[in-house]
Amino acid sequence: LITLLSDFGYKDPFVGIMKGVIARVNRMAQVVDLTHGIPPQDILAGAMALRHSARYFPCGTIHVAVVDPGVGGARRPLLIESDGNYFIGPDNGLLSLALADRPAPRVIHLSNPTYHLEPTSATFHGRDIFAPVAAYLSLGVATAAFGEAVEQFVQLQAPQVIRSDRALTGQIVYIDGFGNLFTNIQEQDLLEWERESLSITVGDVTICRVSPSYTDGDAGTGVAVINSWGVLEIALNNDSAERRLGAKIGDRVRVAGT
Amino acid sequence: LITLLSDFGYKDPFVGIMKGVIARVNRMAQVVDLTHGIPPQDILAGAMALRHSARYFPCGTIHVAVVDPGVGGARRPLLIESDGNYFIGPDNGLLSLALADRPAPRVIHLSNPTYHLEPTSATFHGRDIFAPVAAYLSLGVATAAFGEAVEQFVQLQAPQVIRSDRALTGQIVYIDGFGNLFTNIQEQDLLEWERESLSITVGDVTICRVSPSYTDGDAGTGVAVINSWGVLEIALNNDSAERRLGAKIGDRVRVAGT
Amino acid sequence: LITLLSDFGYKDPFVGIMKGVIARVNRMAQVVDLTHGIPPQDILAGAMALRHSARYFPCGTIHVAVVDPGVGGARRPLLIESDGNYFIGPDNGLLSLALADRPAPRVIHLSNPTYHLEPTSATFHGRDIFAPVAAYLSLGVATAAFGEAVEQFVQLQAPQVIRSDRALTGQIVYIDGFGNLFTNIQEQDLLEWERESLSITVGDVTICRVSPSYTDGDAGTGVAVINSWGVLEIALNNDSAERRLGAKIGDRVRVAGT
Repeated sequence: LITLLSDFGYKDPFVGIMKGVIARVNRMAQVVDLTHGIPPQDILAGAMALRHSARYFPCGTIHVAVVDPGVGGARRPLLIESDGNYFIGPDNGLLSLALADRPAPRVIHLSNPTYHLEPTSATFHGRDIFAPVAAYLSLGVATAAFGEAVEQFVQLQAPQVIRSDRALTGQIVYIDGFGNLFTNIQEQDLLEWERESLSITVGDVTICRVSPSYTDGDAGTGVAVINSWGVLEIALNNDSAERRLGAKIGDRVRVAGT
Repeated sequence: LITLLSDFGYKDPFVGIMKGVIARVNRMAQVVDLTHGIPPQDILAGAMALRHSARYFPCGTIHVAVVDPGVGGARRPLLIESDGNYFIGPDNGLLSLALADRPAPRVIHLSNPTYHLEPTSATFHGRDIFAPVAAYLSLGVATAAFGEAVEQFVQLQAPQVIRSDRALTGQIVYIDGFGNLFTNIQEQDLLEWERESLSITVGDVTICRVSPSYTDGDAGTGVAVINSWGVLEIALNNDSAERRLGAKIGDRVRVAGT
Repeated sequence: LITLLSDFGYKDPFVGIMKGVIARVNRMAQVVDLTHGIPPQDILAGAMALRHSARYFPCGTIHVAVVDPGVGGARRPLLIESDGNYFIGPDNGLLSLALADRPAPRVIHLSNPTYHLEPTSATFHGRDIFAPVAAYLSLGVATAAFGEAVEQFVQLQAPQVIRSDRALTGQIVYIDGFGNLFTNIQEQDLLEWERESLSITVGDVTICRVSPSYTDGDAGTGVAVINSWGVLEIALNNDSAERRLGAKIGDRVRVAGT
């Protein structure tokens, strides 16, 4: 099983081409799209999407991720194995959040051109390096065959929550297609708080509790929930919080006791 | 064979995550996307898309549909079987149009948590309830195992055509990605009319006949056809009728004899 | 293996319906989406996407392409075989670029209704003709069974590069989802030039060399590369050249020695 995640969008045949490359190497490979709607060059959004997807796949899955503004430059193409799962992509932090909670990874620099397409373009390593490596890996080629082991890989610094005496300050780190605002404040950050009597402030809007679901509020009223990624989310019932609140990635979110 | 339809869009990995959940339960399941471009929370659009898709799939197909503004609230998660086909989704009318012409359905409330993901979120039942139930069903688990049988499920009221002596008044009920305007006037509603001499009016535009195809008109001229869903459609040759006519869902369409 | 390419977009279930039709005929068929994001009715964009995708698929692949403004009119539905690969779609030039470099094709007019869906709509031959023909072909039905052989099919005239003594004038022929500008100037057109000392002009912008990769420039500065389709491309590092330069299909691109 091979998954694909990218910022390629849906206008072009680039994802389809990667699937052709995989099929030429291994006709039996199953390929699943995670998403190709990551905003262009947004490595953090890609890293978060990969982190919250990978755990739902069977052990042994090969995850290929391509958000790669440095393609053709100095950044290395990598294969990382941890706990029987595989991650393939550029060494720019994209893979790092998915590996954060896993056992010590084994990192391979994909330096062996035997498993690359020839000629190798400088603009589309998804087609020329990552797809064929994933396909050969799915056939059982040993990880060591793809290149030399390396020690380090780029770690993305996810924004941290700041704690003070009676408050937490986090930020919006992801906005989904519904316009729901995902924060970096996790469920466990709120364990010691009373969910029914908090104040959650983003921009001009203050919400007074963490609700059990979206439906716990009138249409068009802000609602705060713990969402499917286990983080505090600000949403509007049947509307886009992004558009209605004018919110954007990086906006501060403050949680205070009352 | 499992199909997926939703309003999740293409920005996020939510659909990919559902496929991971399915693959963990049944690696052999084939999954086909109907569409994930249903407008957010638009239950009627989702219900119509499902209705006009399901008939083209093999008997025994499991259709999972998630347009679910009430997720986490009181609405029930359902599995409905009719005539050897299966429909899984929220009890909000989304499944009802696809079942309208089928034999009496068997309806199960998905109340057995054995087949749900734990913990079950309040915001993503596609991942936590509908996908795993579809996967276990594809493995052959009996429908009765998923919960208790219920009698009723929510029926969507599709807009009706109003007939007068020499005219029909319908409305625009679906607009496709080309900007073509689908009405609720069906081919059989027009049987007694002379297709070559009608007047079809939407907004300021009047079209004088039902044409055999889109090509039966000059570029940029309105054309009325019976489309692939068997309904009267107003289109512009090589252009978007939605944009050019400023049309929207619910706009009245009048057909009169001449 | 069957691929699908269209201008259907992602809002509607039309692509999913085609997959249902295929599954009813051949449950074992593997279906891969090339893209469904071709701009509506843009036959040239579809033809280029198909041309640059097909070569990456295994021999014997069946490519179904539907950008079909003339559906239901006089244009013929075709099946074209060349070199063991199959192309199915309307006779409007869409298939022609993919066949340009291949051996003499065998062309079949899909006139045998045995392999079409009944009733056959006038608006959706993807569902009613192209998908079932692809599915029966994947089962091993002989090409001759689908209709009579014909000699000619519509050839798309791709824009040509104009050469003068010390310059080439081409044009923008494709713009990808990143806003990168693909020209019709091929790598071999530049063989005799010194890549480090050229002037490449599009609109008000002049770039002074062909770079080895996107990263060879400051953020927001124009960069020219030979891209994954083997053509000269103008891009902006981490930005959209389309938006920032106000560029569009058909804009002139001039390459001159210095």
